[in-house]
Amino acid sequence: MEEIVPIKITKDMKVKELVESMAGLGFQAGKLGEAACLFQEIIKDKEIKLFLGIAGAMIPAGMKNIIFDLLDNTSIFVSTGANLTHDLIEALGEKHYKGNENANDWELNKKGIDRMYDVFMKQEVYVKLEKFFSDNWEELSKAKTIKELLWKIGSLIENKESILRKCYDKKIPVFCPALADSGIGLMIWGNKARGKKIEIDAFEDMNEIIDFSWKEKKKAVFYVGGGVPKNFIQQAMQFSTPALYGIQISTDKEEYGGRSGAKLNEGISWGKMHKQGKFVNLSCDATIALPMILAGAKA
Amino acid sequence: MEEIVPIKITKDMKVKELVESMAGLGFQAGKLGEAACLFQEIIKDKEIKLFLGIAGAMIPAGMKNIIFDLLDNTSIFVSTGANLTHDLIEALGEKHYKGNENANDWELNKKGIDRMYDVFMKQEVYVKLEKFFSDNWEELSKAKTIKELLWKIGSLIENKESILRKCYDKKIPVFCPALADSGIGLMIWGNKARGKKIEIDAFEDMNEIIDFSWKEKKKAVFYVGGGVPKNFIQQAMQFSTPALYGIQISTDKEEYGGRSGAKLNEGISWGKMHKQGKFVNLSCDATIALPMILAGAKA
Amino acid sequence: MEEIVPIKITKDMKVKELVESMAGLGFQAGKLGEAACLFQEIIKDKEIKLFLGIAGAMIPAGMKNIIFDLLDNTSIFVSTGANLTHDLIEALGEKHYKGNENANDWELNKKGIDRMYDVFMKQEVYVKLEKFFSDNWEELSKAKTIKELLWKIGSLIENKESILRKCYDKKIPVFCPALADSGIGLMIWGNKARGKKIEIDAFEDMNEIIDFSWKEKKKAVFYVGGGVPKNFIQQAMQFSTPALYGIQISTDKEEYGGRSGAKLNEGISWGKMHKQGKFVNLSCDATIALPMILAGAKA
Amino acid sequence: MEEIVPIKITKDMKVKELVESMAGLGFQAGKLGEAACLFQEIIKDKEIKLFLGIAGAMIPAGMKNIIFDLLDNTSIFVSTGANLTHDLIEALGEKHYKGNENANDWELNKKGIDRMYDVFMKQEVYVKLEKFFSDNWEELSKAKTIKELLWKIGSLIENKESILRKCYDKKIPVFCPALADSGIGLMIWGNKARGKKIEIDAFEDMNEIIDFSWKEKKKAVFYVGGGVPKNFIQQAMQFSTPALYGIQISTDKEEYGGRSGAKLNEGISWGKMHKQGKFVNLSCDATIALPMILAGAKA
Repeated sequence: MEEIVPIKITKDMKVKELVESMAGLGFQAGKLGEAACLFQEIIKDKEIKLFLGIAGAMIPAGMKNIIFDLLDNTSIFVSTGANLTHDLIEALGEKHYKGNENANDWELNKKGIDRMYDVFMKQEVYVKLEKFFSDNWEELSKAKTIKELLWKIGSLIENKESILRKCYDKKIPVFCPALADSGIGLMIWGNKARGKKIEIDAFEDMNEIIDFSWKEKKKAVFYVGGGVPKNFIQQAMQFSTPALYGIQISTDKEEYGGRSGAKLNEGISWGKMHKQGKFVNLSCDATIALPMILAGAKA
Repeated sequence: MEEIVPIKITKDMKVKELVESMAGLGFQAGKLGEAACLFQEIIKDKEIKLFLGIAGAMIPAGMKNIIFDLLDNTSIFVSTGANLTHDLIEALGEKHYKGNENANDWELNKKGIDRMYDVFMKQEVYVKLEKFFSDNWEELSKAKTIKELLWKIGSLIENKESILRKCYDKKIPVFCPALADSGIGLMIWGNKARGKKIEIDAFEDMNEIIDFSWKEKKKAVFYVGGGVPKNFIQQAMQFSTPALYGIQISTDKEEYGGRSGAKLNEGISWGKMHKQGKFVNLSCDATIALPMILAGAKA
Repeated sequence: MEEIVPIKITKDMKVKELVESMAGLGFQAGKLGEAACLFQEIIKDKEIKLFLGIAGAMIPAGMKNIIFDLLDNTSIFVSTGANLTHDLIEALGEKHYKGNENANDWELNKKGIDRMYDVFMKQEVYVKLEKFFSDNWEELSKAKTIKELLWKIGSLIENKESILRKCYDKKIPVFCPALADSGIGLMIWGNKARGKKIEIDAFEDMNEIIDFSWKEKKKAVFYVGGGVPKNFIQQAMQFSTPALYGIQISTDKEEYGGRSGAKLNEGISWGKMHKQGKFVNLSCDATIALPMILAGAKA
Repeated sequence: MEEIVPIKITKDMKVKELVESMAGLGFQAGKLGEAACLFQEIIKDKEIKLFLGIAGAMIPAGMKNIIFDLLDNTSIFVSTGANLTHDLIEALGEKHYKGNENANDWELNKKGIDRMYDVFMKQEVYVKLEKFFSDNWEELSKAKTIKELLWKIGSLIENKESILRKCYDKKIPVFCPALADSGIGLMIWGNKARGKKIEIDAFEDMNEIIDFSWKEKKKAVFYVGGGVPKNFIQQAMQFSTPALYGIQISTDKEEYGGRSGAKLNEGISWGKMHKQGKFVNLSCDATIALPMILAGAKA
């Protein structure tokens, strides 16, 4: 048994020092430290392929650059449609704003402001979104799969700090099974409703993620929240070979039985996770945990 | 201000009595009672169209009949792929089992058992699933949208207690934007991988839900968990007219900023919820709350 | 492995039927059903002595009668000071009110209303509290331990539906180590500050609970929330013999490491819980779960 | 409205930089940053008196030095008995160990190990505790209040890194209304049970905290967890003047109605918090948040 050495905060302490020293502590500080150390281990071994799944409103909260940096070590990226839409919104020059969770929602509505807890966004962002899709429809409508569509969007984004642009530039497969459920989906619907054509297959992308998962022997999964991104990656593992490493940051709880809160070791029963794998389940808001894990890995 | 009258439990008390008396209490008992009363109000008014969104592993936990009964009052049904897959699994004669959340996952794996918290399922269920899809491929492959596919599956299920069968029988539109992320999705992938053809459009269903939402003036939403089902319905409201009534059962928390935990009133800012609507946000495991709400409505 | 049989809600279903059928389900419905069945088992065996610990603002929310009825099967009762204070407030004829969790707290303050989430209470309740303590000081000040003080308060309450009165009437030992931290504590402080005398020993009650725990061989614990009530009972077990049965209703989570969220089996390592004991940890608002468990036991 | 500028993690980033930049973000990262900035504001103004309330198993998890450092800016300290007991245990040379939350509790029991989630402690620590109380009984038994007893314990501790020793050295009033509910309480009970005398008044300390609170005009509260420490401080505010500043780190949720999860603004209705006060409610494991807040203040 290792002694728990109480941490001492020093003047000018670096995040990397703090997060690494947390690995020796109990409770969620311990889990955060372990997650940071495991992430370093994962990215050091170039044979390990990382599957990154991102749910939650990460971009609105200010996590765009964090995810942008995580992509440097990502082989497969699965996201909710919302995060990709908000990335596109920022890439088109629109902003998110620090608001107040106790604001009057009807007052906000009258001012044209959408609220996500304490983050505000102007409803007029949809104008630029619509222009982007309408200007680029010819090119976009050539896509046959969701991944192709997302890469095409990325290729048309000028802002190099965009997540979608980076996925395109670095040829990182980006999957989003529920893209219909997002602002980007709404733009597709809007153009289709005006009689424009596009044919995107709902299942075609499954092939690529499962094939990739079959070929790779050393795989790691990294989940921010649960939802479709986690589930889509987990089933790729189930129908190929299990992941050896796993980090999950979630505030959902396992006792309510949903897949979002399930601990990673549950995946061993399904064959999604390797019986001798290394897994860390961290219960913390990802907006706090992600920057610290990334800081631990920057050196 | 109404006095809180402490509830008194009587011998042979009915669920309907209990849940209605809870409406006068504080904390989550109060919310549960209010949700039950609001649900009764919603189903009594035949002009109100109910949009039901179901996430979480409801079928494995034993909620199939509850959702089956809720469909009697449902105009639009949106589900995760998992719940539909587990409904199909039960319809094909397979079972879920009461397990133990502390079971050894590697031992379970060796026995061919998949774990969902304290619910177990045999991995061999996939054999029947595969046979179903292979036997019925010709018919299934005619579907062009996810809704059509799900209705076709429903039409081919013999068991009349199936949710999918009921959606088909009663012509309840059933949407599942992320169907790729589920056992049914895997069956589609498997057949495609063996060279069979099917072309399902990823965005086509959006039209129907948004059109329906446009036409209806009195709308209610009922969310079990969050995820894609909630979001898909919410955006249909945003791009048509806001919902007047809303019930949400979720254990997610608003302060982490994800859409699953967002309180319904947040939707007023987006134009998804009506500024004078009646909304109840209930924080409770749905496996407890749903049966009580339904019992309150049976009379 | 037992099959999970999906529950079917019937017209006029009784709470007892519902909660017992939940025992065969998964997730927290399963836990609630198991808790209800275990509670029935506990109260049927007259050799089992039940230690009941109550935290959380149960009385304000409308749970007074529930706890009142639970005392019929309780050998040792440990409570927060707040629940006992609110019981006294109701016994003196004051009320709690159904309020609104989004009320403006400064407006409430100006109206003399104290808020507990969505429960309101008039600040003027303190007038009656003060009168009670001042009228009865001579008798109350004879108490030498917290238990004696609480029994004396009970003996002076005329309302027979009071929890404190029932503890006195039925000679149920009632402990409250942190009584200083409550309205009753404030009344003691107020009288002391005006020069009146009372000498209550802070540790004397420990003897009685630990002695009782030593003598009894078949013990059950029932915790609503955590905090001091749970901890005080748990340490009595630790320093005598472990409990054989345990039910815990809590929304705290074990991963944050506090005793309130700790699962009961953790107590096995400490010798607080018996290695072959039967324990149920239920994650649900107690205002929902308690009435259902009690209803299951009424017959 | 302030734009949310996505944070960028740099090599060798300092904790202070990270936590301050978080203040501009959304969700709980924003709250953590705001808490860190508010804490800096509080400690810079020497007229502000800080009331620190600590619940949860902070010492076992490795937070001893963090709390030790927080005491530099603390005027009144209120703790659970457990944290003070574990401080004494460490001061006597015993340790806490990094364990495993999935360990078999019966195996641990046989090895004499107590578990607190993933923190282990040897049961033999009680031997040193007993010796300490027996060796020092004569001096300890002179105490008449809980605060006096805790200061006496502090005065007898040789280890200068102890929290209790520091409270004594710096004459920081340390209150613990529920001390009976802890290892220290058990030591008092054990000596009393062996016929030794000590008379500690259960209510006497209330005078000092309420008097102090009356005299001070600029007050801040800082709560780690809820429970008795928070409540004891809050009622001192209620019966004197409200606090102007407040920071709360808790994973409890307001919707279950307990005081531990109540947001600080609820205290405005009670007159515990000032209507124009500055409050931050942070939902995060304190073992993660506390070191970051402290690091932000070290300069």
